[in-house]
Amino acid sequence: MKQRSRFLIGLAFLTVLLNGIGAQADPIAGADDAVIDDIVTGSRVLADFGVLDGFGHVSARHPTNPNRFLMSRSLAPALVTPADIMEFDLDGNAIDPRGRALFLERFIHAAIYKARPDVMGVVHTHSPGVLPFTVTKVPLRPIFHNPSFLGTGAPVWDIRKEFGDTDMLVRNPAIGKSLAEALGDRPVVLMRGHGDVTVGPSVKMAVFRAYYTDVNAKLQAQAMALGGEVNYLTPEEAAKADTVNSVVIGRIWGLWKARVASGLAK
Amino acid sequence: MKQRSRFLIGLAFLTVLLNGIGAQADPIAGADDAVIDDIVTGSRVLADFGVLDGFGHVSARHPTNPNRFLMSRSLAPALVTPADIMEFDLDGNAIDPRGRALFLERFIHAAIYKARPDVMGVVHTHSPGVLPFTVTKVPLRPIFHNPSFLGTGAPVWDIRKEFGDTDMLVRNPAIGKSLAEALGDRPVVLMRGHGDVTVGPSVKMAVFRAYYTDVNAKLQAQAMALGGEVNYLTPEEAAKADTVNSVVIGRIWGLWKARVASGLAK
Amino acid sequence: MKQRSRFLIGLAFLTVLLNGIGAQADPIAGADDAVIDDIVTGSRVLADFGVLDGFGHVSARHPTNPNRFLMSRSLAPALVTPADIMEFDLDGNAIDPRGRALFLERFIHAAIYKARPDVMGVVHTHSPGVLPFTVTKVPLRPIFHNPSFLGTGAPVWDIRKEFGDTDMLVRNPAIGKSLAEALGDRPVVLMRGHGDVTVGPSVKMAVFRAYYTDVNAKLQAQAMALGGEVNYLTPEEAAKADTVNSVVIGRIWGLWKARVASGLAK
Amino acid sequence: MKQRSRFLIGLAFLTVLLNGIGAQADPIAGADDAVIDDIVTGSRVLADFGVLDGFGHVSARHPTNPNRFLMSRSLAPALVTPADIMEFDLDGNAIDPRGRALFLERFIHAAIYKARPDVMGVVHTHSPGVLPFTVTKVPLRPIFHNPSFLGTGAPVWDIRKEFGDTDMLVRNPAIGKSLAEALGDRPVVLMRGHGDVTVGPSVKMAVFRAYYTDVNAKLQAQAMALGGEVNYLTPEEAAKADTVNSVVIGRIWGLWKARVASGLAK
Repeated sequence: MKQRSRFLIGLAFLTVLLNGIGAQADPIAGADDAVIDDIVTGSRVLADFGVLDGFGHVSARHPTNPNRFLMSRSLAPALVTPADIMEFDLDGNAIDPRGRALFLERFIHAAIYKARPDVMGVVHTHSPGVLPFTVTKVPLRPIFHNPSFLGTGAPVWDIRKEFGDTDMLVRNPAIGKSLAEALGDRPVVLMRGHGDVTVGPSVKMAVFRAYYTDVNAKLQAQAMALGGEVNYLTPEEAAKADTVNSVVIGRIWGLWKARVASGLAK
Repeated sequence: MKQRSRFLIGLAFLTVLLNGIGAQADPIAGADDAVIDDIVTGSRVLADFGVLDGFGHVSARHPTNPNRFLMSRSLAPALVTPADIMEFDLDGNAIDPRGRALFLERFIHAAIYKARPDVMGVVHTHSPGVLPFTVTKVPLRPIFHNPSFLGTGAPVWDIRKEFGDTDMLVRNPAIGKSLAEALGDRPVVLMRGHGDVTVGPSVKMAVFRAYYTDVNAKLQAQAMALGGEVNYLTPEEAAKADTVNSVVIGRIWGLWKARVASGLAK
Repeated sequence: MKQRSRFLIGLAFLTVLLNGIGAQADPIAGADDAVIDDIVTGSRVLADFGVLDGFGHVSARHPTNPNRFLMSRSLAPALVTPADIMEFDLDGNAIDPRGRALFLERFIHAAIYKARPDVMGVVHTHSPGVLPFTVTKVPLRPIFHNPSFLGTGAPVWDIRKEFGDTDMLVRNPAIGKSLAEALGDRPVVLMRGHGDVTVGPSVKMAVFRAYYTDVNAKLQAQAMALGGEVNYLTPEEAAKADTVNSVVIGRIWGLWKARVASGLAK
Repeated sequence: MKQRSRFLIGLAFLTVLLNGIGAQADPIAGADDAVIDDIVTGSRVLADFGVLDGFGHVSARHPTNPNRFLMSRSLAPALVTPADIMEFDLDGNAIDPRGRALFLERFIHAAIYKARPDVMGVVHTHSPGVLPFTVTKVPLRPIFHNPSFLGTGAPVWDIRKEFGDTDMLVRNPAIGKSLAEALGDRPVVLMRGHGDVTVGPSVKMAVFRAYYTDVNAKLQAQAMALGGEVNYLTPEEAAKADTVNSVVIGRIWGLWKARVASGLAK
């Protein structure tokens, strides 16, 4: 399947490139390229790691207008480009829809940006590591230092409690508000039978947390399977270790940007 | 191994392309390119995900003749091209065999298209996630919303019950009929010591269900390993959530088509 | 890392190709290209699947001289080319060594070809699926039809029983003979704390069995983890299903050859 | 994502290559290319296997000055090039910093080179196989011959015992000394809630041990999950088998170098 003419692909790529430039003709006012690049990089690298499959999304609060946020039109995360990023208000309304399809669950992001002024980035995934923890009573806890942000607890929000039997989606502001309340002032909330949401003071940190929540969940399950008590980070260790993450995140983000740039993220 | 001349590969690709055009000189009457493309995309993407290995198959009911269906000549799913698609009647006979090798288990598809007028696509896999569930008494149940179609139950059909000690294959219409009866009006049936079959109102949906049945099986096993009761989707949640799948399937199918087009599906 | 000049790589590839042609100037008398190609394809595809890592080997009985066998000089399986294949007698002596390094464990192959006139291909792996079964008392049994050749049992040979504390290697004819006796007339033998050996009436079938022994081991472990009794293939089912493998092996071998040819096997 | 112009990539690569040559204008006195190449190869191949993610590091004792060691500036291991290698003294001070960012945990390496004159290479990872064993009481033991170096035991060092609640990092010489004491004269030490350190008489062997410690941990967990007693290598078997590793390491290192050279290590 790799035996494809690289010449034809090269042409296709140039076409996409030119179309892309055309499609970006109406940039979002005040949104710099950096934050849009973070959304694209985060979407693609989480898809490459399998934290996202065809579903899930990454968003950023508008860098100069705190009452707006930026996220892609409805599209698989691995395919998101800068031209796909749209602007929304904090009720989940698109500012300039131009007929584009919207994510049904944009209210996850809208409600959290409304409730949490400190949050600058939000990620929603169906993380395969995390999903088993959303349907059991085992609390997710940090087993090493990179996921130390889990030290303040990762509550499980169950849509059924407040809304009964639904289609499981956060499809309106009221459900979004309920989820945001369960998140509280924490970095992570799990969603029963659905996935998780991670937030952060930047898109980069929200993506970092989505990745390491998935990693920690898988490793915690394996540690539990070995039998006996698991020696988790203490709350004090977790708090101290988490301050290191903001120092070293640039190192792993540099790797992720390089992977996306080289086309390794599939 | 990647150190191959892209020029030689380009030439090889053009040769294959030209041969392919030649091989497609006798198209199947009334079968549009779209449904054939869905069979090819579904075969390749399920192989890329490891849901299929060298075996298993994807088929479509003929779009204008409900008494016919389309599937590849006997070939590993990752290698299927439009030129390999053949036409069959609902007893599993090839319409225009031209000496091509046929899948031994085409009767799975024939029997289901005969029994289920609503089914437009069928997938048969040896899904590694599902196989453990075919040889134990643990029922497969939906732990999140994408595999919500499992909410109506996924029965395990055991060839041994009706046919005794066999070579395990659905190699004639009688065995196909037995399997189709076990499927009933559901979207999925498991086959003891063998794999599964998923069906749908389109090839796309049958492929979507094959993928998410594999995903759910792996995640359900992990949730069970954590200990305690698993909080599955209620039947009402599952029914509501499944209606969403038909709305969002285009998003993940777009991703899968892009992956296949870029040669990422191996 | 993919950002490498394809031009430089193309040149490197042509150089290797020309060197390769030179290196094949002294072909092995009577050994046709087909069986050498099978050794190369089998080595590379098993490495691609992770059944082999840097160690392990694939061999063939000499097609016209039953007292000889063919295997690579000491080399990681993923790197084996036709020019690396050497000829050995059934005591493990190289016929024309030319100073090349030899696998320490070539006596696995020599002893089995001596003891089993029906065997035309032998594979030795440190299969990650199988290794856990070599150090526990759980017998490996077929949970689906492709690994049906396991229906006659897969004994575990323990080098410690006859030879005490060793370096674990089959490094002489006496140890090879002990292993061959444990294999008996079966297709697979496990080696405690080491790996496994699969044999067959062709290199293709020995490779097929190495692959599906690994697959079955992983799936059997998962089935056991679900709890309750596992419904294995009966001996009669296994015997019947195994006859199908020799009919369909060409389909998966075609896939594997295509993968190796396109450079996908890493 | 692979649909990128190989021509543009080729140009980018040449640019990097030329920059790289420029960046290497000030080589480290007395440090030959071979050991620097081993650091680069080891970093990249461990990243490709997932033993390292964006964090962790590989170092070498300076080949002609035993009071110095070589490691990269602060950078994700998959991105390390020869131009990134710096020189340090055994207190962890950079000899010629030129403003480059340094790994916070370089004291792991400094303290071990100081305490262990026999050690020529050190690797620190957050190995996903090993992490579960750092937070439980299950000792890591060799289940097959390649990880036989585990036969002398792999102690778990817990930073909390001596230093209380910390940010988990080995961020100064005192913590490094404590870790080196826990390592003692062994090849591997585990770090509670953090990862592991492997050492060896060469960079190659330290990398080999990092890889096989991860492999063994995963396989041991699977063997334990099968139930019953696990038949580990005896100390005598382990000692004898470990002498084989130094004979065969060239074979797997040749594979790893080829993988890195062909850009397969991502």
